[in-house]
Amino acid sequence: MEPSSTRARLLVTCPDTSGIVATVTGFLYNHGVNVTHLDQHATRPEGGTFFMRVEFVGAISRVAIESAFAEVVAKRYGMDWQMHWERDVRRVALLVSKHDHAMMELLWRWQRGELPCDIAMIVSNHPDAERHAQRFGLPFHHVSYEGEGGLERAEARLAELLVGQVDLIVLARFMRILSPRMVDLFPSRIINIHHSFLPAFVGAKPYHQAHERGVKLIGATAHYVTADLDQGPIIEQDVMRVSHRHLADDLVSLGRDVERQVLARAVRWHLEDRIIVHDGKTVVFV
Amino acid sequence: MEPSSTRARLLVTCPDTSGIVATVTGFLYNHGVNVTHLDQHATRPEGGTFFMRVEFVGAISRVAIESAFAEVVAKRYGMDWQMHWERDVRRVALLVSKHDHAMMELLWRWQRGELPCDIAMIVSNHPDAERHAQRFGLPFHHVSYEGEGGLERAEARLAELLVGQVDLIVLARFMRILSPRMVDLFPSRIINIHHSFLPAFVGAKPYHQAHERGVKLIGATAHYVTADLDQGPIIEQDVMRVSHRHLADDLVSLGRDVERQVLARAVRWHLEDRIIVHDGKTVVFV
Amino acid sequence: MEPSSTRARLLVTCPDTSGIVATVTGFLYNHGVNVTHLDQHATRPEGGTFFMRVEFVGAISRVAIESAFAEVVAKRYGMDWQMHWERDVRRVALLVSKHDHAMMELLWRWQRGELPCDIAMIVSNHPDAERHAQRFGLPFHHVSYEGEGGLERAEARLAELLVGQVDLIVLARFMRILSPRMVDLFPSRIINIHHSFLPAFVGAKPYHQAHERGVKLIGATAHYVTADLDQGPIIEQDVMRVSHRHLADDLVSLGRDVERQVLARAVRWHLEDRIIVHDGKTVVFV
Amino acid sequence: MEPSSTRARLLVTCPDTSGIVATVTGFLYNHGVNVTHLDQHATRPEGGTFFMRVEFVGAISRVAIESAFAEVVAKRYGMDWQMHWERDVRRVALLVSKHDHAMMELLWRWQRGELPCDIAMIVSNHPDAERHAQRFGLPFHHVSYEGEGGLERAEARLAELLVGQVDLIVLARFMRILSPRMVDLFPSRIINIHHSFLPAFVGAKPYHQAHERGVKLIGATAHYVTADLDQGPIIEQDVMRVSHRHLADDLVSLGRDVERQVLARAVRWHLEDRIIVHDGKTVVFV
Repeated sequence: MEPSSTRARLLVTCPDTSGIVATVTGFLYNHGVNVTHLDQHATRPEGGTFFMRVEFVGAISRVAIESAFAEVVAKRYGMDWQMHWERDVRRVALLVSKHDHAMMELLWRWQRGELPCDIAMIVSNHPDAERHAQRFGLPFHHVSYEGEGGLERAEARLAELLVGQVDLIVLARFMRILSPRMVDLFPSRIINIHHSFLPAFVGAKPYHQAHERGVKLIGATAHYVTADLDQGPIIEQDVMRVSHRHLADDLVSLGRDVERQVLARAVRWHLEDRIIVHDGKTVVFV
Repeated sequence: MEPSSTRARLLVTCPDTSGIVATVTGFLYNHGVNVTHLDQHATRPEGGTFFMRVEFVGAISRVAIESAFAEVVAKRYGMDWQMHWERDVRRVALLVSKHDHAMMELLWRWQRGELPCDIAMIVSNHPDAERHAQRFGLPFHHVSYEGEGGLERAEARLAELLVGQVDLIVLARFMRILSPRMVDLFPSRIINIHHSFLPAFVGAKPYHQAHERGVKLIGATAHYVTADLDQGPIIEQDVMRVSHRHLADDLVSLGRDVERQVLARAVRWHLEDRIIVHDGKTVVFV
Repeated sequence: MEPSSTRARLLVTCPDTSGIVATVTGFLYNHGVNVTHLDQHATRPEGGTFFMRVEFVGAISRVAIESAFAEVVAKRYGMDWQMHWERDVRRVALLVSKHDHAMMELLWRWQRGELPCDIAMIVSNHPDAERHAQRFGLPFHHVSYEGEGGLERAEARLAELLVGQVDLIVLARFMRILSPRMVDLFPSRIINIHHSFLPAFVGAKPYHQAHERGVKLIGATAHYVTADLDQGPIIEQDVMRVSHRHLADDLVSLGRDVERQVLARAVRWHLEDRIIVHDGKTVVFV
Repeated sequence: MEPSSTRARLLVTCPDTSGIVATVTGFLYNHGVNVTHLDQHATRPEGGTFFMRVEFVGAISRVAIESAFAEVVAKRYGMDWQMHWERDVRRVALLVSKHDHAMMELLWRWQRGELPCDIAMIVSNHPDAERHAQRFGLPFHHVSYEGEGGLERAEARLAELLVGQVDLIVLARFMRILSPRMVDLFPSRIINIHHSFLPAFVGAKPYHQAHERGVKLIGATAHYVTADLDQGPIIEQDVMRVSHRHLADDLVSLGRDVERQVLARAVRWHLEDRIIVHDGKTVVFV
């Protein structure tokens, strides 16, 4: 039995042509659904790619509307599409290494009700994060990369913990690289925070690189993880002003504030279905 | 005879209800018009006010579509609405007093093609602006407020110059107050730049007030002019960081950069039909 | 017995005249002290007020250098001055009501070693904060304002807890007004975070005021508390961009991020002796 | 004959040790000079490099104080140092290609008295800039790179125009590379504006690179020109927010606003002697 009224979000990507908005909104109206928000974007005035995000609410059977939409609308326009229903709360895994500020920011916001999800587990290659997990009453898994065959064992353990268990993986300063197989299994569902303003300072120790180069702003970048390290679609970026007075260690410390904010925004936007990935880039409807 | 293809923008305000987006986009689709951009906003999930901006392009008779829209759509939903056609280039008057930086910013942007309008004239209570008008090949009118009966004569002269002659008046640091009659004749069509972060520091010498109070950020506010001084709907604001090192005169100088940027954005948004005024506030679709 | 080497900071305010920097740095050099950082500021090129902050390190008797400085330097220039010694770790009380985000931000930063102080206690008029105090192993005091005579009892209890016990009081969204007597006892030693960009939106519910006025930026202000509500010397301010899409409640939620950052910076600067209050305003050496 | 009172700025770089500030300020005090502003910086608490900027005013013989300072102070500490006298107004050449927004920003600011310099000439490889030069009453030189041997002729012509004639060269979107010989002749005296947030997007068409990568912020970087393209010491950087809605051409247009502000700040700081170059980076005293 369906609840009497439910909220959902529809994300659409398709070749642009005339009449898509009219067709989609007409379809929803005819199914008794009320559109509460609509955003659309086309890459070019004509002949580009069309993106749309619709929030709607109504007393409706999920199965019925999804199959009707597939049949009547999506097929006609060749759409990639998803409907997310607010009552299907997503399960999120937080992966963290030694620096816990980004994870803590997410946990606090989650506790204040700012992140609509369940935190399914905290996973770390360090044992330190366990006490935070306990504070928040969350399952904790320590995955060791140490010893002979440690990498393989760790990757197998991660797969066991995550595959089929969670909808989103957040690398909240997790300093290990996920296996290509894991990345393939979670397309546009792994978010990483890189502690530089990408594409500047890829790779290790970006704050030290930034200090060495003498930049006047440092930044952070949240992106979806792909097989190419630090090359995935950028979700959000921000910067802060620094000066000659700051040592590399100061940049590490100051940068934490930007990392926290940028990652929190990216995760929230993902959970609110505001992001569409297309052609290595993101459309973010905010 | 209509041109073979034309661009236009539709702005809509009405009580929110189900099906507005479907109706409007269906209407446009049925008239062979291609929607290239659509933004909408509702003040509440249900029962609030609905706002929409649609960009469209098509080979269409302006008279035909406007009368059909009025009849078929607008009446049904009780809409306040406007259609602006790109080929109806708006005529703008720039009013300036002694400080010319805000006016110059607009002129330079206009010359680079960033402001889609005709600058119909420059009007000033100081003769200094004339040389700038000449540089840009623009009509200049000096309106003196001096002498007995100066205010009345100036207001009459302004009315003569502007009423029926221009579509938008920009007060680019014009230090005189327009008459209530003038303000009434140009509802949401007079833009002023106030040199503070309103509502802080209303009235005269805001940078000196800001210095006196010891604020750490100074700002500027572009707003539509209403009968209440400094109280009109805010279009855009921005700030910059200052410190104890800055004297009041430094704030005046630094603030010019914010004023220029803020006013230029507000004027461009107005000319691109991105702003709807409702209930003393603005909806800005950017 | 003095430790072999110690760090300290000197803050100076005096009428400006020639030779102050030379005298102070010469004095420190002659006492075998090494200046590691020096900042100065004068309100005018001549005849204004002079401010200076010096960081120094050396193997030196605190009593000896303080008495020598008072005798040889401070008296000559009519200085207001303080020397703070790094080993005299300041004791801080956090006062909080219902909204705990600002307090939590301070606690997390303190735990990461970013705030050089001891948190002596958490005080609240709500019992909720106790669990946070316990997590961080900190003393908690619930001070009730309820019932007949509640205000007087609460003020007496606060005085008992704080006077002579702490060096700094931080109002981390504490929604009660401290008594004038308490304010007098902690001059420039009570920091409040106000959830607006002062002087806009003084008083209650500033985010609702901001929403009502339709501003495009919201902000927060950290200031020292004086007898005049919301009028004390401003330490730090920051803003974030909002739009017509945000309801008043969204502003409350978004604003938390600015409040947290602004208060954390203000408290850190105070603890690092970067702030001099003069004439109702602050000089902040950052 | 010296004027009765004069303003000057002293810039110092030397190995850090105890007593430098005391010695320098004592020296100036003993020569009857009044320090109006002083900034210093050391790269490490001990054993690093020391930088200082002093503004002073006094009735003093320039030759006398410079030779005394060299003898008494600079030699003792192994200082790199410069004294700039306010009455020695620097001569600046602006080099520009097709995009004139950065040059125009500098000209307008100069005209408003914000840039303390003489604009000695405008040089361009395009004839278009001549009309701007005429408006401002400035000498204009067109230097063509066209035809066989064009590069060599152009470089020779530039050398003829600039060497010995100007104190500072500003590349205000000049799309040609200066010869290594020219770069050598103007060490830390050629400022370029690069239209990206360096080190991201070095080389040609940075806005198109930024669009391709899908970044959420675009930026601009002002730097001193060295033999390594886009690798010179960074003076100033800033960014602005962009989104998926912006085409590459929009980034070009939006980016102009950042370029103008960043270059203007960098040139002003240079002219106010606020910048010291050391080890491929800048110390900027602002």
